[in-house]
Amino acid sequence: MNKQALQDTANRIGKYIHRTPVLSSTMLNEIAGASVYFKCENFQRMGAFKMRGAASAILNLSEVDQKKGVVTHSSGNFGQAVALAAKSLGVKAYIVMPSSAPAVKQAAVKAYGGVITISAPTLEAREAESQKIIDSTGATFLHPSNDLDVILGQGTAAMELLEEQAELDVLMTPVGGGGLVAGTALAGHFFGKKCVTIGGEPFEADDAYRSLISGKIETNETANTIADGLRTTLGDINFPIIQKYVDSIIRVEEEEIVAALRLIWERMKIVIEPSCAVPFAALLREKERFAGKRIGIIISGGNVDLGALPF
Amino acid sequence: MNKQALQDTANRIGKYIHRTPVLSSTMLNEIAGASVYFKCENFQRMGAFKMRGAASAILNLSEVDQKKGVVTHSSGNFGQAVALAAKSLGVKAYIVMPSSAPAVKQAAVKAYGGVITISAPTLEAREAESQKIIDSTGATFLHPSNDLDVILGQGTAAMELLEEQAELDVLMTPVGGGGLVAGTALAGHFFGKKCVTIGGEPFEADDAYRSLISGKIETNETANTIADGLRTTLGDINFPIIQKYVDSIIRVEEEEIVAALRLIWERMKIVIEPSCAVPFAALLREKERFAGKRIGIIISGGNVDLGALPF
Repeated sequence: MNKQALQDTANRIGKYIHRTPVLSSTMLNEIAGASVYFKCENFQRMGAFKMRGAASAILNLSEVDQKKGVVTHSSGNFGQAVALAAKSLGVKAYIVMPSSAPAVKQAAVKAYGGVITISAPTLEAREAESQKIIDSTGATFLHPSNDLDVILGQGTAAMELLEEQAELDVLMTPVGGGGLVAGTALAGHFFGKKCVTIGGEPFEADDAYRSLISGKIETNETANTIADGLRTTLGDINFPIIQKYVDSIIRVEEEEIVAALRLIWERMKIVIEPSCAVPFAALLREKERFAGKRIGIIISGGNVDLGALPF
Repeated sequence: MNKQALQDTANRIGKYIHRTPVLSSTMLNEIAGASVYFKCENFQRMGAFKMRGAASAILNLSEVDQKKGVVTHSSGNFGQAVALAAKSLGVKAYIVMPSSAPAVKQAAVKAYGGVITISAPTLEAREAESQKIIDSTGATFLHPSNDLDVILGQGTAAMELLEEQAELDVLMTPVGGGGLVAGTALAGHFFGKKCVTIGGEPFEADDAYRSLISGKIETNETANTIADGLRTTLGDINFPIIQKYVDSIIRVEEEEIVAALRLIWERMKIVIEPSCAVPFAALLREKERFAGKRIGIIISGGNVDLGALPF
């Protein structure tokens, strides 16, 4: 893992992704007591940072493997990201989606040219359907977070942020499967100046917090959080990176997530997913720790169901 | 009215406003069949283009008049804009607000340092309270739309847009009191290359559409539109400008406004007021007319009540 690997990834995926804007708000800075820079990956292609990792992973396949296609199972953003990145590269994408996935998400994958297979809504069924496709096509399976090329791709958002705000003291991201926080921590370590990376996680799905304490990958018995992107657990590839490069993880209550979400919608005028509000909620929860600092927050995505808002 | 007046206004207000970003979306361009550039005044200070006109009007007062303060009556964005612009300039702002104004809007004016007087919720009461303040303080009354300095200020948003997208064929804005569309049409005329300005208006409050036909300022008997910023009527200062420089006005149904609003929220990931969706709804309603053109749309503001969304 080195600086050059990140730089190569950024160069490789550059033309397949948007360079997203960095926004800030005087009002939110006053509320936070710090200078906060929001890296708006909700404006990324297909609406989330996952586009970066998907593009990175597909670009890293051999030409032979690209011809056979890629497969993933996802009910959310990673399926859309793989479909769109594959389309941009002329690669066939097979997306296994649980029958419980909203019609709108299926439509999005289809619009991006993905070949959808509907499975029963269990992990076993999704994995079995994926394996069937791999067996019959030779397609390469892409994991949304536990894959080094994906992790490096996700890290490019923080690299761009550090290019604009070189003096950041802290980078913050939500922690779900661990790809974003791991990639961000690498970017902060190699491209920041004494910049530490801190994750935000719901108390309701605090597997990563507990994993850092126990030293092994913990799971969640339940995950009743509005931050639906953060219900997943870490993997054996990203966990060692997180152990080495992430400073700490701050847990937040559900009400804190909703309050932070509302503040960002109201003050920043941007549509973001509940998961994105978790790091800002973490900042507000431990305000004194961040007083006067320069904080970069990765706003991970903006694909929300407007019919089901918590306001 | 000339090019220099607009340029002077832009120079004068420059340091008191944000230069807002211009966003576009591949998806929305596909849906519209045109290239659409959204000038995001929802990211403007206090969340709306009104900041431009308020700053312009206050900066244009003599030093003596600035010392006496300014007064306006408003239940919405202009009150906030005057309060914030006045605060930035060290000028006292008296804002008359109807007792029906939501607490959150009163709080915003107060946060910007405005001195609030609550009046009964009728136009007469608001005007009487304003007059009382003028009589006792000598403060200058600022009108939100029927004022040349305000109109020139509002036109600076389109000037900035044309600096980034010089080849626009069409500029579109919502039409409420007429200040934004008049200023935009001036900017399009003096700074565009054969760029026409078209207004969008709800059928439910189509006073401007009818005014252009009859040649005199028409009013609305009712104004049952979700586009609450567009319930007002034109004034004797902006109407002649609109007659001379605005190409036409397109009317839209309420369902079209809500559909356009949802598209912009979902695809652009930005929080905008219902009024802002009216020009995009007008574009979609008359798609063939705009096919293949380059369209600039002024997104007028983003101050919405998240507890009362139409989704």
